[in-house]
Amino acid sequence: MRVVRRADGIPGPEVFELITTPMPDCPPGGVLLRVLNAGVDPAMRGWLSAEKNYATVPDGTVMRALGVGEVIESRSADWAVGMAAYGWLGWQRYAAVPAAELLWQADIAAAPPETWISIFGLNGLTAWIGLTHLARPKPGETVLVTTAAGGVGGVVGQLAAAAGLRAVGLAGGPEKVARATAQLGYAAAIDYRAPGDLAAAIADTCPDGVDVFFDNTAGQLADAIFPYLNTGARVIQCGTASVASWLPPPQGPRRERDMLVKRLTWHGFVAFDHTDLFPHALAALRELHAMGKLVSHDHVLDGLEHAPGAIRMLYRGENRGRLSIRP
Amino acid sequence: MRVVRRADGIPGPEVFELITTPMPDCPPGGVLLRVLNAGVDPAMRGWLSAEKNYATVPDGTVMRALGVGEVIESRSADWAVGMAAYGWLGWQRYAAVPAAELLWQADIAAAPPETWISIFGLNGLTAWIGLTHLARPKPGETVLVTTAAGGVGGVVGQLAAAAGLRAVGLAGGPEKVARATAQLGYAAAIDYRAPGDLAAAIADTCPDGVDVFFDNTAGQLADAIFPYLNTGARVIQCGTASVASWLPPPQGPRRERDMLVKRLTWHGFVAFDHTDLFPHALAALRELHAMGKLVSHDHVLDGLEHAPGAIRMLYRGENRGRLSIRP
Repeated sequence: MRVVRRADGIPGPEVFELITTPMPDCPPGGVLLRVLNAGVDPAMRGWLSAEKNYATVPDGTVMRALGVGEVIESRSADWAVGMAAYGWLGWQRYAAVPAAELLWQADIAAAPPETWISIFGLNGLTAWIGLTHLARPKPGETVLVTTAAGGVGGVVGQLAAAAGLRAVGLAGGPEKVARATAQLGYAAAIDYRAPGDLAAAIADTCPDGVDVFFDNTAGQLADAIFPYLNTGARVIQCGTASVASWLPPPQGPRRERDMLVKRLTWHGFVAFDHTDLFPHALAALRELHAMGKLVSHDHVLDGLEHAPGAIRMLYRGENRGRLSIRP
Repeated sequence: MRVVRRADGIPGPEVFELITTPMPDCPPGGVLLRVLNAGVDPAMRGWLSAEKNYATVPDGTVMRALGVGEVIESRSADWAVGMAAYGWLGWQRYAAVPAAELLWQADIAAAPPETWISIFGLNGLTAWIGLTHLARPKPGETVLVTTAAGGVGGVVGQLAAAAGLRAVGLAGGPEKVARATAQLGYAAAIDYRAPGDLAAAIADTCPDGVDVFFDNTAGQLADAIFPYLNTGARVIQCGTASVASWLPPPQGPRRERDMLVKRLTWHGFVAFDHTDLFPHALAALRELHAMGKLVSHDHVLDGLEHAPGAIRMLYRGENRGRLSIRP
């Protein structure tokens, strides 16, 4: 699936073109993989935008995506035919990639490929690092999560529940709210799109205040939550999904006084800053999964032809679980 | 020195009344001290305001102040006559206080009383905890400090220099800027009141960006500094002196995107959250002092009659060093 133009807003089918090319050669030092599953992520909007972004997918190239593939040919000492790998495989049926594009081995005998791009992939590691390593919650504390039913938020809720925390989620729409409490570990969830008083809903669901604010949205949702942060609370900035443009930065209430008076700690992070923790985090996630305390809820689209509309599905909230494509 | 009314703005002589009372009795479980030195602090403005504050000094009571005194009578097992103590002694010549109001022993044979309310007092401990414990700087990093010539900032600069960091200070007026570089460890200092481009001055003095932002002011000064923060920088929120009112919070540029993209960590703190570190911090400060790497620069007013005008001196920047009163 090739990118043919920049997206104006949420990328749709007009941005992509499905082409057929000859089977690629296995590159020196690299591997050729049959792609089993490729992710659909909110970050793709930024990669396809004309605006400056931390990563971009140029016109004319294969759509960037994390995925799981089975090695069918190898010219790398690290990878043998028959192994499965998680890495930057792209939206395509076969991927010829340097070994450096592969992140880690995916044990697809233990869990299906889609599990390796969700709870055992960057979503899971991001949730674990943000919650366990940075926020360091104590049992009984309240963790409030925005985009609670998202790829990361869905893992944070389950990790929080497994750690004896009270998880409260914010999500958009009744379906996601229901999924957060039914499947994703949340003790309570708030539909931030519903009419009514958001502050009152936060006060109701967080009677002891908020000790950890795991924020994927920023903006006005965050503004509604800051007054409920307890002394010593930790804010984990994992995303800023609700703010469309940061050039120039939009205005909002100054945080300095809350930072000082409530002795807050606010961490911005991306998982790749903590690669040293990956093996430990992955082992912890696999153990919780084996104990039945961490479940991968997936929504798999069958066929690469569904990929062009998949980013819109995500932004419209039409997915029921972590969205990916079986090409 | 008794408080007789609320201050409107910076407290001046109209707020205080000097009275003479009989020598107080030593309270059960407490001590009677002869006050050797009592501090003058920017926080006093808040204590004397009619607005809600974390601490207040009610009308009719002795002005609250940290000070150093010599025990002249004791009914506490922890304190013997002849020992000197650092604690909440107030603006007065003799203080009869419960032992709980005393923070620690002041070794006035090793350093004069004013040293024990500055570099060996809360100013010193606040600087040490914020810089050494929370920011955890690595040699060669750049530390930018607002109110660089203030009670805390003056210690941060010296600690930074002793740790092999490049300290850059912001201060108001040429006298403080000169003092920052001549006495307080700063490699460079910026007069934020001077006409000209503050952003350019920060860029000039921080050619490698800012790794630690030790902020005592908040507001527009902080806005000018945030664009120069490096990836992985730490923001230490120690005060918010430049913002007069926080009800409602004033608006400013949203920080969420910087927090995320630059992977910042922002700590709000007060020294008393870290009492477990006090003994270690005090030992470290004393060692640096003994090595000549940490000097107490004091401006001592002789006589309690100078106290009513002293807070104004501070806010007008008329003090040349850490301001205190020998009552």
